[in-house]
Amino acid sequence: MFYSKRDLHFQLFENIDALSLTSFDYFKDHNRETFEMVLDAADQIGMTSLRPLLTEMDRQEPQLVDGKILVHEGMKKIYRQYGEDGWINACFSYEEGGQQLPNTIQSAVGFIWQAANYSASVYPFLTSGAANLIRTFGSKELIERFTPNLYNAKWQGTMALTEPDAGSSLSDLSTTAYPTEIEGIYKIKGQKIYISCGDHDACENVIHLMLARIKGAPAGVKGISMFVVPQKRTETGASNDVLTEGLYHKMGYKGAPIAHLMIGSNDGCEGFLVGEPHKGLPYMFQMMNEARIGVGMNAAAIGTAAYNSALAYAKERPQGRKINEKDPSKPQVPIIEHADVKRMLLFQKSIVEGSLSLLLYCAKLGDLVHVAEGQEKEDAVLLLDLLTPIAKSYPSEMCCLTTSAAVQVLGGAGYTTDFPVEQYYREARIHPIHEGTTGIHGLDLLGRKVLMQDGRAIRIFAEKIMQIIVEAKVESSLLPFAEKLEKYLQRAQQTSGHLFAKVGKNPEEFLADATLYLEYLSILTIAWQWLHQGFVSRKALDSGTPEKDFYQGKIMCMRYFFEYELVKMDGLGKRLVSGDIVTVEMRGEWF
Amino acid sequence: MFYSKRDLHFQLFENIDALSLTSFDYFKDHNRETFEMVLDAADQIGMTSLRPLLTEMDRQEPQLVDGKILVHEGMKKIYRQYGEDGWINACFSYEEGGQQLPNTIQSAVGFIWQAANYSASVYPFLTSGAANLIRTFGSKELIERFTPNLYNAKWQGTMALTEPDAGSSLSDLSTTAYPTEIEGIYKIKGQKIYISCGDHDACENVIHLMLARIKGAPAGVKGISMFVVPQKRTETGASNDVLTEGLYHKMGYKGAPIAHLMIGSNDGCEGFLVGEPHKGLPYMFQMMNEARIGVGMNAAAIGTAAYNSALAYAKERPQGRKINEKDPSKPQVPIIEHADVKRMLLFQKSIVEGSLSLLLYCAKLGDLVHVAEGQEKEDAVLLLDLLTPIAKSYPSEMCCLTTSAAVQVLGGAGYTTDFPVEQYYREARIHPIHEGTTGIHGLDLLGRKVLMQDGRAIRIFAEKIMQIIVEAKVESSLLPFAEKLEKYLQRAQQTSGHLFAKVGKNPEEFLADATLYLEYLSILTIAWQWLHQGFVSRKALDSGTPEKDFYQGKIMCMRYFFEYELVKMDGLGKRLVSGDIVTVEMRGEWF
Repeated sequence: MFYSKRDLHFQLFENIDALSLTSFDYFKDHNRETFEMVLDAADQIGMTSLRPLLTEMDRQEPQLVDGKILVHEGMKKIYRQYGEDGWINACFSYEEGGQQLPNTIQSAVGFIWQAANYSASVYPFLTSGAANLIRTFGSKELIERFTPNLYNAKWQGTMALTEPDAGSSLSDLSTTAYPTEIEGIYKIKGQKIYISCGDHDACENVIHLMLARIKGAPAGVKGISMFVVPQKRTETGASNDVLTEGLYHKMGYKGAPIAHLMIGSNDGCEGFLVGEPHKGLPYMFQMMNEARIGVGMNAAAIGTAAYNSALAYAKERPQGRKINEKDPSKPQVPIIEHADVKRMLLFQKSIVEGSLSLLLYCAKLGDLVHVAEGQEKEDAVLLLDLLTPIAKSYPSEMCCLTTSAAVQVLGGAGYTTDFPVEQYYREARIHPIHEGTTGIHGLDLLGRKVLMQDGRAIRIFAEKIMQIIVEAKVESSLLPFAEKLEKYLQRAQQTSGHLFAKVGKNPEEFLADATLYLEYLSILTIAWQWLHQGFVSRKALDSGTPEKDFYQGKIMCMRYFFEYELVKMDGLGKRLVSGDIVTVEMRGEWF
Repeated sequence: MFYSKRDLHFQLFENIDALSLTSFDYFKDHNRETFEMVLDAADQIGMTSLRPLLTEMDRQEPQLVDGKILVHEGMKKIYRQYGEDGWINACFSYEEGGQQLPNTIQSAVGFIWQAANYSASVYPFLTSGAANLIRTFGSKELIERFTPNLYNAKWQGTMALTEPDAGSSLSDLSTTAYPTEIEGIYKIKGQKIYISCGDHDACENVIHLMLARIKGAPAGVKGISMFVVPQKRTETGASNDVLTEGLYHKMGYKGAPIAHLMIGSNDGCEGFLVGEPHKGLPYMFQMMNEARIGVGMNAAAIGTAAYNSALAYAKERPQGRKINEKDPSKPQVPIIEHADVKRMLLFQKSIVEGSLSLLLYCAKLGDLVHVAEGQEKEDAVLLLDLLTPIAKSYPSEMCCLTTSAAVQVLGGAGYTTDFPVEQYYREARIHPIHEGTTGIHGLDLLGRKVLMQDGRAIRIFAEKIMQIIVEAKVESSLLPFAEKLEKYLQRAQQTSGHLFAKVGKNPEEFLADATLYLEYLSILTIAWQWLHQGFVSRKALDSGTPEKDFYQGKIMCMRYFFEYELVKMDGLGKRLVSGDIVTVEMRGEWF
């Protein structure tokens, strides 16, 4: 199995208490039964539709033929199924044909599919995000024109941001929108690169949510507007002059086509302004923030699939004997009995389950942002803002390492294409790059998030951590963990204070180690998640649960994280307060 | 360029003083000029023969057709060239047709080729190793029969160890040798997997140096013997019943064929005993120890090629502006001006140049083992033994991370097949696996090497580190680095002492974190290498060298390593002395 259903249920129903959402009016028709039905349906799709194509979609890459990208034949049925079963708009309101499903449950659905077949999971996710932007910021006319065929998955949605000279630096994008005689309609000209699902033959049309600059708009991020740019004119089905110039071939994640698009080369591309002019970036950030949590989830899901492959292998593969056994005539033991193999498995388990815990917690915050009110909502907004760069980057960076550990558990076999772990290793590597590189998220966290509203978000963050520390201290077996986390939290506050003192003096110096600060705070965050999981598991064990193995595994994994991962804050913390600004002083010509 | 010729010369002639070898009689005909001629010739081959096929050999994988592995057509010319130019036996004596070239220089040659095209570099390396085993342990008859066509690269050599049930656990291998009426000749039966260059059409015959168990031999490692097993009978060219059962398809390193061999399925396989019965493993370890240093070099070379790709990209790619520049109308700057990009480049530079320094130092120790006498030789033997697991594993593990950093510097472009960095990322991943996994080397270091001769090797190690600490302390600008290294050395000694106290009590507990100990001691080792490089560079700067940029880069890189890498010992050290044996206590059923 590529994920643990038991753990997913633990995360949702015991760890983050997703059911508490049903006390809000918007979710009142839901209950554990409806949630489980949704998860079971997703599990079925994952098992029967997505999983069987995992390897094939990697080996038979999309092809660009006569200007059209052709994807794996199986994607047609899969993509149609997403629409027919109502997955694209499941979170939207009843009035919109949705099921008012919490984002939290939809995220868990995504997790299952991403673990089953990451490439195949990307298509509906993008469509859902594009539809969400139109329904949130678009006019009634745009909504009526575009959303129905996105919801039913006849069409594909995309986010079209990146350009050859504007990747991380979005303020430099130069695709231009020229006003026409009809209000709201513009002629678009430019090019976009790295557009996921930017063109393919498993849908009838592609609807790009595209950033462009209205002719004469101010330079920088303040001059960017958002447009709906269909590949084909919706009235006639004729070309809208969005041409597929190229198809990227990639190390992994091969089943999803990434396109290079030429827009309006023949002056024939018409785009529809979404909302007001010059507000494109704030609009897009709604989708990007969700997409960022989504990327963290992708990484955790791929890490989970790799972990489960490695675990199954370790239980079956005999090799070597226990350290104390020198007699070569004794049978070999399964490698899971070796401490070093258990270490590699605990590493993976602690990262993927710690990440999943954080990601579903963030998904729940996302729901609270929509349905809660007053202080609860405000806190959710701030905390989610603060946690987004962590939830995006930590799983992304770490699951490159956990998939690597999965390869290592299999040894030589893991390096061959006979097992899926090498594919997971290749697929994991995209996540520290797309939806903002790790470096960008470091700058976001240290340069913006921790400072906003005079540090209120980070105070809420510390309060939440203290809550579980206080609760855990009551349990004698958890006391040492609670105390250790408290000590690291205090140290993190000191380290942060030390950095903040540099803000005004020298911004470059202040931000030089933002990526390390992101890692530093991420480890603390995941330790918090593990103390929470440990606390819930301790309670279950104390109440005499029959599932002793499951909960004991959680306790051990918490121990692992505190022993092997949390201590990494020591070296990072030392570096963060060092005065040696070697990366600032280094010069290009010295390399 | 895929490597820095300037840095390679620095490493050889300034850092490890390879010329000092020419004071030994065996190398007396050599001098800087002959060394540079060799390096220039290797550079030419790298540039003109190997490099042009880097991408093609990855895309056009070897194929198994009618029981024969066909490799890239270009390998025929390349492999022949290795033989014709005398590279296979360059280190061997004049009497053997060699050039008495130091292993140190040959290692540098390997580094160039591995950086140019790793797959293509593997073929001659294996042949050279196999020939070396035959000339060292084989009878005169075996030497005459097999070595000439290995030297001239008509034939390919291999190391045939691994079996389906005996990978890391070599003591379990079951390939069997049955005595025949002719002394020294045995019938061999069994199977071998993961045999690099185990069969291909760029040579006329394949000569396997194969481990097998003579019928009736004791179980375990003490019953293993070594045989020369040709693919074809050398007298007639007829099949020797070594059949290619399969070809592994791999994540990277695709240009070198890895075979699954069936030996003697038709009772027709004849093998020649090398040396004495039951001594196969000690014999093989001569080759394996060299191969292990070689694997570290492969990793460092691939890391170097990736670093140079990333560096060239960072100098040319404009994106974003300096932190202090808010005006979007100002032109973008090359990304090498961003502190976080410089950090990622310094990371790569510090790892690959730190590793290269260690690896060439080890290669020189290998030369001293052969040519030195008395105490100098004894010390070299012990120090090389101790450093081998470090020199193999640290570059292997870390260059997975440096190639990842190279991908990250390129961003989305790095994930596409338009640039070579994704290939480097895939190719780097084999090194923590082959020639003993990192876990095996951890056990070797902690369980064997540091304890041998009552810890004498580790005392020599500490003395060598103290030598440069004492020298560096005299330079005021190096004093802080010398003091820091001294402090970490002392701590490492304490940590080691803490671990040694567990040896007798509970071996499993003692060795549970051997992999972490390996990483811990590796970081100290590379910091030592960096202080050495920093010291040499400081001297050059003080003497008024015109190459200020080069040496300044070295000083900065030393600073980087001490600031960002050395501090990782803090968390590792804390874990190593912790009493929580979570990985020992964890049970399979709890996962």
